[in-house]
Amino acid sequence: MPTIIVEVMPKAELLDPQGKAVTGALTRLGKSQFTGVRIGKRFELTVDGPVDDALLAEVKTLADDMLANTVIEDVINISVLDEGSR
Amino acid sequence: MPTIIVEVMPKAELLDPQGKAVTGALTRLGKSQFTGVRIGKRFELTVDGPVDDALLAEVKTLADDMLANTVIEDVINISVLDEGSR
Repeated sequence: MPTIIVEVMPKAELLDPQGKAVTGALTRLGKSQFTGVRIGKRFELTVDGPVDDALLAEVKTLADDMLANTVIEDVINISVLDEGSR
Repeated sequence: MPTIIVEVMPKAELLDPQGKAVTGALTRLGKSQFTGVRIGKRFELTVDGPVDDALLAEVKTLADDMLANTVIEDVINISVLDEGSR
């Protein structure tokens, strides 16, 4: 069955406390080449049936209305994984 | 500055309660074409300097040791985004 990937990241202008914590941990470990970390989400939606433009439009609406909190997050990418690639 | 993307998903054989909750919500909304949802994480690491094989090997180690909880999660992908692509 095809899988649709939806990627969601915290808005660039907002603080990302979890990412800040990881950045701090990397700095304390001496990994100063990593200057920032931001942490978002990756959704895998399994679809029963073909993926067409109408379905992708529906996923876009669902992503904005349900998967992401668009007050603090942006949907940065929606893509299709073929059957079997994971 | 280049950005390294690390993608982490719950292990396939484990329950993903958050994903199950979203699947249930989709079913209740009548979106029965979506048969499953799994929710993972997407890390963006900003790097000061060039990205070479040694750095990618270090990111792989960090991903397994620090970003993912490898008891319940798999690091499924590490990739490099060029400057400016987001």
